[in-house]
Amino acid sequence: MAVQTVSSSTPEPASTGADQVSLGPAVSLSCRECGERVPLGPSFACTACFGPLEVAYDLPVGDPEALRKRIESGPSSIWRYAPLLPVPEDVADKPNLNPGLTKLVKADNLARELGVTGSLYVKDDSGNPTHSFKDRVVAIAVEAARAFGFTTLSCSSTGNLAGAVGAAAARAGLRSCVFIPHDLEQGKVVMAAVYGGELVGIEGTYDDVNRFCSELIGDPIGEGWGFVNVNLRPYYAEGSKTLAYEICEQLGWRLPDQIVVPIASGSQLTKIDKGLRELIALGLVEDRPYKIFGAQAEGCSPVSQAYKNGHDVVRPVRPDTIAKSLAIGNPADGPYVLDIARRTGGAVEDVDDARVVEAIKLLARTEGIFAETAGGVTVGVTKKLIDDGLLDPSLETVVLNTGDGLKTLDAVAPTTGPTAIIRPNLDSFREAGLA
Amino acid sequence: MAVQTVSSSTPEPASTGADQVSLGPAVSLSCRECGERVPLGPSFACTACFGPLEVAYDLPVGDPEALRKRIESGPSSIWRYAPLLPVPEDVADKPNLNPGLTKLVKADNLARELGVTGSLYVKDDSGNPTHSFKDRVVAIAVEAARAFGFTTLSCSSTGNLAGAVGAAAARAGLRSCVFIPHDLEQGKVVMAAVYGGELVGIEGTYDDVNRFCSELIGDPIGEGWGFVNVNLRPYYAEGSKTLAYEICEQLGWRLPDQIVVPIASGSQLTKIDKGLRELIALGLVEDRPYKIFGAQAEGCSPVSQAYKNGHDVVRPVRPDTIAKSLAIGNPADGPYVLDIARRTGGAVEDVDDARVVEAIKLLARTEGIFAETAGGVTVGVTKKLIDDGLLDPSLETVVLNTGDGLKTLDAVAPTTGPTAIIRPNLDSFREAGLA
Ligand SMILES: [Zn+2]
Ligand SMILES: [Zn+2]
Repeated sequence: MAVQTVSSSTPEPASTGADQVSLGPAVSLSCRECGERVPLGPSFACTACFGPLEVAYDLPVGDPEALRKRIESGPSSIWRYAPLLPVPEDVADKPNLNPGLTKLVKADNLARELGVTGSLYVKDDSGNPTHSFKDRVVAIAVEAARAFGFTTLSCSSTGNLAGAVGAAAARAGLRSCVFIPHDLEQGKVVMAAVYGGELVGIEGTYDDVNRFCSELIGDPIGEGWGFVNVNLRPYYAEGSKTLAYEICEQLGWRLPDQIVVPIASGSQLTKIDKGLRELIALGLVEDRPYKIFGAQAEGCSPVSQAYKNGHDVVRPVRPDTIAKSLAIGNPADGPYVLDIARRTGGAVEDVDDARVVEAIKLLARTEGIFAETAGGVTVGVTKKLIDDGLLDPSLETVVLNTGDGLKTLDAVAPTTGPTAIIRPNLDSFREAGLA
Repeated sequence: MAVQTVSSSTPEPASTGADQVSLGPAVSLSCRECGERVPLGPSFACTACFGPLEVAYDLPVGDPEALRKRIESGPSSIWRYAPLLPVPEDVADKPNLNPGLTKLVKADNLARELGVTGSLYVKDDSGNPTHSFKDRVVAIAVEAARAFGFTTLSCSSTGNLAGAVGAAAARAGLRSCVFIPHDLEQGKVVMAAVYGGELVGIEGTYDDVNRFCSELIGDPIGEGWGFVNVNLRPYYAEGSKTLAYEICEQLGWRLPDQIVVPIASGSQLTKIDKGLRELIALGLVEDRPYKIFGAQAEGCSPVSQAYKNGHDVVRPVRPDTIAKSLAIGNPADGPYVLDIARRTGGAVEDVDDARVVEAIKLLARTEGIFAETAGGVTVGVTKKLIDDGLLDPSLETVVLNTGDGLKTLDAVAPTTGPTAIIRPNLDSFREAGLA
């Protein structure tokens, strides 16, 4: 493992592309394809093979008991895991939204309905500051932006990410400039704009927005800009590891048997796997088998299709589903997801939009958790995997809810309303048959 | 102080009106006006003088250090304060939403804008499970409902409470039946209905809904029904004490100098004061002066008007404000609020709707916290109190945000949108003047 080059003093913000930054245990970026290493910086593609870069660490191996105690006595947020993340040691003292340590809910009512006889848990990330798991990844990106001397935090988004970036930048004192398709629903626009950063509507599709952002990064105008999901992506993506850490700590430093994770780009699933493997390597949990399952909406199920067809490559699709936060037709991490599902003995499955809505309501009426459509996908797929015999209902299972139902009200609104409308008297109430 | 009659074994659910229930340190209900005591039960008005009943306790005095340790090692929810609440000892083991322990955010950016030179904190209750402080009070009501053998959880509501009751009942396995005016906005109806309980729209105003509920409680149909804000109100209201407990614990077991609290019925403010006084009596915090300030919207400011006019009684008003969760024209606890504001050296103030919207945006752009209109009222009033010299900006101040901006999007939507709409190219971006 590489020697850690971190100094204990806080350096001045480095200029863009600096090769000496202080990001805790992170020592370099490494190519996921060819292993090539490059210094920590705002890079995202390998210069040798164009493969994706990810953060490489010098992790604190050797004394798991001390590490566990340090984590347990840390802050009630993802920063308790700072020793395992690409962030400075003093990260918790800086102004940020302190996401994470969301509830792991023992879902006995849901288990009964699904016929799960083992323990069933819902990891409920709607409890994050802007009510989606995006707060985790953006928080890490903010630290990278600070380290690289960026003064503007940016992204392309159709929803959750815009709010997460706007809020995090406001609190951190960074300028933000978020790009969205100009014809988004008003609710999403309000959520993206309320934090006071620049919000730019692009006349075009989400693909047009992305293409424009790539252009901007290559132009002098984009100097000093950190795009959380482009040039800060290697750091940003690491935030999803904290879901794995929290689940295991909340289970009493133990791996669950099975985890069901939604798939958008696939990054979250691959980083949860990375997080679990790190905990094993560090001796924080016992090394034993676990299975990771991926969940997609039928209307955007390229990874699920590839899984079922036994393919290693993922054929892009044009998304058509109410689960818009998962609607990535060409998921960058698709092949890695396939590999993990197969290696761990999991699977990838999809459900149609009607079942997504059903699953949202099922989770709400059994556990009082109102999930966004992505959560409906995950719960719906869990049910299907059980029905099809692919997920063992006698084992311990954790299902992820990555966002809040308040953000996707439209999905359930057409079929969710009053049981009865009555006049304000007892006779009218009796007539409605509810007494 | 009364002798505690609680047994350590868990009794069978008692029938409605039973006088032997197990609610931890709670020993009786006592009249806030004449002091008359009645056994714990679903009562809410004194039979002697019709005054409001509240919970009386046998609190664990005598060993503050042991109590503090017990609390600190307790669950990450309001249940860490179970020894001070009317709930069974094993409350944390029962299925409930585990609200509370929301973030106390050090708001340095906001402090700078407001000219606060002391420490400024926002207690952000949008982090609760259904994203408002109502989860706290409903969680306590659920325990009372269980203790009294109620099988249906009910309330009248125009918003936050409906969702909180629906979610809590779903998770607790209780039936719920929530009454709302039939013409609520669709978003609020969806939030109230999605948890699968009965939702009844009443053809009439919110006052009509309330009148109908009172009728229902007096009728045999209503037997076995716990109305969280009527016959369970004495227990329900105690949930607001946990805000006081958490603020002091999060400050390191210390009273803040000043707290700014929104006023709807006024119950929350009076219970925060009660909670602070309990912490002093128990020796958990040092006894020193604190000031409590009340915040109302100008369009529903009966308590603020009474305060400014030097009155002891509150003259009812017809509410007309965007801060609908505070729009109670005849606040039951108004006189107590006046008493507390005067006794502690605080004040009661109001702001108009335009300033409420401004304050929502101010909090969002400085701290990344998107508050509902009630939060805008509290921040707006804080600013006004400072400007008017009534709140000392050199002291330590805590401002409450009681709910989430996602629930009142309409308030900011008309004035919150993209900075610019551009075509997807750099020239168009340059022309917009954002580069
Ligand atoms: Zn490479
Ligand atoms: Zn009385």
